Amino acid sequence: MRMIDDRTGLEVLNREECLRLLREHAIGRVAVVAGGRPLIFPVNYTVDGATIVFRTDPGTKLEGVSTGFNVAFEIDGIDALYHTGWSVLLSGRGREIVDPNELKAVAELPLRPWAAGAKAHWVRIRPETISGRRIITLDG
Amino acid sequence: MRMIDDRTGLEVLNREECLRLLREHAIGRVAVVAGGRPLIFPVNYTVDGATIVFRTDPGTKLEGVSTGFNVAFEIDGIDALYHTGWSVLLSGRGREIVDPNELKAVAELPLRPWAAGAKAHWVRIRPETISGRRIITLDG
Repeated sequence: MRMIDDRTGLEVLNREECLRLLREHAIGRVAVVAGGRPLIFPVNYTVDGATIVFRTDPGTKLEGVSTGFNVAFEIDGIDALYHTGWSVLLSGRGREIVDPNELKAVAELPLRPWAAGAKAHWVRIRPETISGRRIITLDG
Repeated sequence: MRMIDDRTGLEVLNREECLRLLREHAIGRVAVVAGGRPLIFPVNYTVDGATIVFRTDPGTKLEGVSTGFNVAFEIDGIDALYHTGWSVLLSGRGREIVDPNELKAVAELPLRPWAAGAKAHWVRIRPETISGRRIITLDG
C-alpha cells in the first residue's frame, strides 16, 4: 500500500523505509543555524543504531552541530533525466562525541574522511523525527 | 592557480566557477528555519541572472523561503566511489514572486515541476554570499 500526500502528490515513506535508505547511502547534507542563518554542508556519514555519525574539522559546521541545537540531515536520490526520486529528512540534535569509550566505538564504524583535513572530531545526530517522500512523476 | 584552505585541505572555488556549476545543474537543496529548526528540501531549480528560481506548493518550504528570512541553497556533485567532489553554498533571502510581470518572465524559464502537485508558487533566492569548495582526495 502506498500513502500519497494529497497536497504535494508525493508518496510518503514510512520510518522503516527511511532507515533502510539511510543505511544504503553514504553522502548526506547537514543543515545548521549559525548567526540566524541556515547553512548546508555535504558530509560522508554512517548510520549507528538509529543515529547519524560523521567526522568533521573545527569550524562552523562543528560549532553548529555539536552544541545541542536543532539540526537537519537530508539524503536524496534524484534522477534529473527520468524525473524520479526520493528524499529523507531527519530533524534532531547534534552533539560532538567526546566520551573516550564512545569515541573508541565509533572509530570502528566504516567511515573515513575524504578530504585532506584531519577531521578529528566526531559528531552524532540523534533524530527526533524522520520523514521521507518519493516523487511520483507527472509522466508516470 | 588553485586556492587551498589550509584548515580543511579543500580547494576554494571562485564566484565565477560557483555560478558556472549552478548553471550546469538542476537539482539543489534549500534550507530554511521553521520554528527554530533548520529543514532541508530538494528542489528542481534554474538560474536567472545571479538568482535561484524554483517552484513549490504551499507549505513549510514556501513559508520558510518566501518571508524574506535568510535561507541557504546548496548543490554538490560527490562521487562516493572515487571520493571526489565539490559543493557550492549560497546564503541569502528568499521571496515568493508575486509581481505579474515578473511571474510572466519566470514562466519562460526552462523549469517544470516533476511531482504531481500543482507547484503554483514561484520563489526567488537572491544570494548575499556564494562559496564553493572542491574535495582534494587523500589518494590524489
